[in-house]
Amino acid sequence: MGKIILTGDRPTGKLHLGHYVGSLRRRVELQNSGEFEKIFIMIADAQALTDNADNPEKVRQNIIEVALDYLACGLDPERSTLFIQSQIPELCELAFYYMNLVTVARLQRNPTVKAEIQLRGFSENNAENDLQRQGIPVGFFTYPISQASDITAFRATTVPAGEDQEPMLEQTREIVHKFNAVYGPTLVEPEILLPQNAACMRLPGTDGKAKMSKSLGNCIYLSDSAEEVRKKVMGMYTDPDHLRVEDPGKVEGNTVFTYLDAFCRPEHFAAYLPDYPSLDELKAHYRRGGLGDVKVKKFLIAVLNETLDPIRERRRYYEERIEWVYDVLHKGSETAREEAARTLHDVREAMKINYFEDRDLIASQAALYREKLG
Amino acid sequence: MGKIILTGDRPTGKLHLGHYVGSLRRRVELQNSGEFEKIFIMIADAQALTDNADNPEKVRQNIIEVALDYLACGLDPERSTLFIQSQIPELCELAFYYMNLVTVARLQRNPTVKAEIQLRGFSENNAENDLQRQGIPVGFFTYPISQASDITAFRATTVPAGEDQEPMLEQTREIVHKFNAVYGPTLVEPEILLPQNAACMRLPGTDGKAKMSKSLGNCIYLSDSAEEVRKKVMGMYTDPDHLRVEDPGKVEGNTVFTYLDAFCRPEHFAAYLPDYPSLDELKAHYRRGGLGDVKVKKFLIAVLNETLDPIRERRRYYEERIEWVYDVLHKGSETAREEAARTLHDVREAMKINYFEDRDLIASQAALYREKLG
Repeated sequence: MGKIILTGDRPTGKLHLGHYVGSLRRRVELQNSGEFEKIFIMIADAQALTDNADNPEKVRQNIIEVALDYLACGLDPERSTLFIQSQIPELCELAFYYMNLVTVARLQRNPTVKAEIQLRGFSENNAENDLQRQGIPVGFFTYPISQASDITAFRATTVPAGEDQEPMLEQTREIVHKFNAVYGPTLVEPEILLPQNAACMRLPGTDGKAKMSKSLGNCIYLSDSAEEVRKKVMGMYTDPDHLRVEDPGKVEGNTVFTYLDAFCRPEHFAAYLPDYPSLDELKAHYRRGGLGDVKVKKFLIAVLNETLDPIRERRRYYEERIEWVYDVLHKGSETAREEAARTLHDVREAMKINYFEDRDLIASQAALYREKLG
Repeated sequence: MGKIILTGDRPTGKLHLGHYVGSLRRRVELQNSGEFEKIFIMIADAQALTDNADNPEKVRQNIIEVALDYLACGLDPERSTLFIQSQIPELCELAFYYMNLVTVARLQRNPTVKAEIQLRGFSENNAENDLQRQGIPVGFFTYPISQASDITAFRATTVPAGEDQEPMLEQTREIVHKFNAVYGPTLVEPEILLPQNAACMRLPGTDGKAKMSKSLGNCIYLSDSAEEVRKKVMGMYTDPDHLRVEDPGKVEGNTVFTYLDAFCRPEHFAAYLPDYPSLDELKAHYRRGGLGDVKVKKFLIAVLNETLDPIRERRRYYEERIEWVYDVLHKGSETAREEAARTLHDVREAMKINYFEDRDLIASQAALYREKLG
C-alpha cells in the first residue's frame, strides 16, 4: 500500500512565513516528489471552532485565505486533495467512538494539550475573550481525539509536523492500537515526518518573539506586498547591542539572520550581495563589526521578495477566480468524504454496529428464538 | 408546535420491572394519550458503548431484547419511532459542535456524571473490568453533551425521566441557551417530565437493595416466565424481624410491599385476595401481626403475573418475528435520521459552516477581491 499524507492548517488568519518555512514549503516538495499515493490537505475549520466558537465569522472568512495561500505556494488540486474539515461528518463519528478508548486522565497528561491550553489563553491570567475566561471548552480538551480521527479517516501513514506534535501522533497511535486490539485490525498507524533542518522548526516573529502571532502584529504574510515586506524587515529585531556599524554584532537570536538561515540560498549572493560569497562570510563580518543592519536587511528583503514574487503572482491569479477556488474545495471535500466514509464503514463493521447490514446477526437471533419457542 | 418526546434505554440487558415501573408503563400511557405530536424512543447503543467499549457484543446482542421488551409493553411503531442511536450519525456531529460550548469544569461539576462514575465503577476501588480500572473514558465523561445532542436533534420538548436526571436536562438547556445566544435561535429547550408518584421513582431489587442490577441477580425481567417470577418473589427480601406469622411486621423497606405499592390495583383484591378490601388493610394487618409473608408473596405473584401475562404474550408474538422487529428498527432509524438531519442542517446554517450552499459568502468574497485587484 502506498504512503498517504494528512496535514493541514487552522483557518484563523492568512498564512505567514512561519507556516511557509515550517510546513508549506516542504509540503509542496513532498507533493511533487511523487512518493505519496495520496495527499490530503485539510482546512481545519472545525478544530478552529473549538476555541473560536463565539467567533465563527473569523473562521469562515479565513477559509478562502488559507486556500489561496495553499494554491499560491504550489499545492496542486490535481495532486493534493484540498478539503474543509467540517464538510466531512464522518470525522465526528469516528471521534465519537474513539472517545470511548481514551481516558480523561490520559488527555490531561498530553503535553501538547497542556502547552496549547497555555498558548491559546485558557488560563485565568491570560484570557483574551469571554470564551477563554470561562475555561477550557470540552471540544478543545478533546482535540487530540479529533485529530486522531482526521489522521485515521484517510488512513494516513505520514503526518509532516514539528517535533512539538509528536505527543499528538503518539495519542493517535495509542487509539489505533487500542481500536485494533479491541475490534480487530482496521486502522492504520501513522508516523510523524519531521522537518529536515532546525531552521525550519519555528520562525520567530519580526519582533524577535518566539511566536508569530496575528495579535502581536509580528508576522510577514505570504500575501504581503513587496512594500509591506520591506517595511516589516526594516523594523525587524536584530541585536539590540549592535548600535554602530563598526560594533561587533550577534548573529544568534538576531531575527534577520534567523530568517536568512531559513530563506537564503547561495545564488542569492551573486544576485543581490556579490561582495559576499556565502551566508557564513556575511555572518563572520557581522560578528567582527563593520557590517550595518540596513545592509543585511536590504539583502533579506531581496531574498524574501524573490521567494514571495511567484507566490504573489499565483495568489493574484487565484484571487481573480474565487468561485473556482471554492469549487476546488467543494470537489476536494467530496473526495475526502468518500475516503473517510470508506474508513468509517470498516470501523462500524469492525465494531459490529452495522446491524441492518449484518444478516448473520438477525438470522442467528431469529434462529435462537425459534429454538426457544419450539 | 406540538409536543415531542425523546426517551430511551441503554441496551445492556433485558428490561426489568424497574424499567417498567420507572418509565415504560408511563411511556405507553403518554404514547396513547394523543398529547404528543411525535415520540422518539432510542435504543442507546452508542451511549452503552461509552462504558462497554471492550464488550460490544453485549450491547449488540441486547438491542433486540430491548426492542422486544418495548413492543411487548405496548410501544407501537405506528405511534412511536423506535430507533437505534448509532444509526444516526448526525448525533455525533451535533455533539461535536456542542463540545465547544461546554467547559471541562462544567462537566466535572455535573452531579449525575459524578454519581454515574461511582455507579458504573470508574473508581479505583470499584472497578469490575480492565476498562474501568484504566479510568473514566472520555466518551463517558462527555455523555451529558451526547445526551443534549440526542434530545435537541429531535427538537424534543419533553423528556420523561426521574428526578436524578434533572442535572442532565439542565446541562442540555444550558447548551441550547448558549447555542441560540451565539448562533441565533435554532434549538428547542426541553423540559423534564417527572413520574407521577414516589413509588414509580425507583423499584428496589428483590434482595431489597436500592439498585436493580443484572450483576447482582436481583431483577425480575419483563421476559421472565410465571414460574421464574414465582421463585424470585418467594425469595424476596421482606422484614428480617418478622420471624413468626403472629409477629408484627414492617411495611416500610419491605420489598414485597414496595412492589405492591407499584403494581397492585384495587381490583386485584377481589380477584386474588378477597379477604382484604385494599392495600391499606393488608398493610395494617401485616403491621399488627398475624399475616405471614407467604400469603402476601403469593398475592404479589398473582398481581405481577397478571401484569406480565399480556406482556409475555405480546413478546412471544414478536419473538416469532425477529426479522420484522429489525425492520421496525430499521425504518424507525430512517425516520429518526431524517429528523436529526433537518436539525443538523439548521445547526450548520446557524453556525454558517454551510459554505458551499452559501452563495452570498462566495459572491461577497469574490467581489472583495475584484475590488482590491481593481
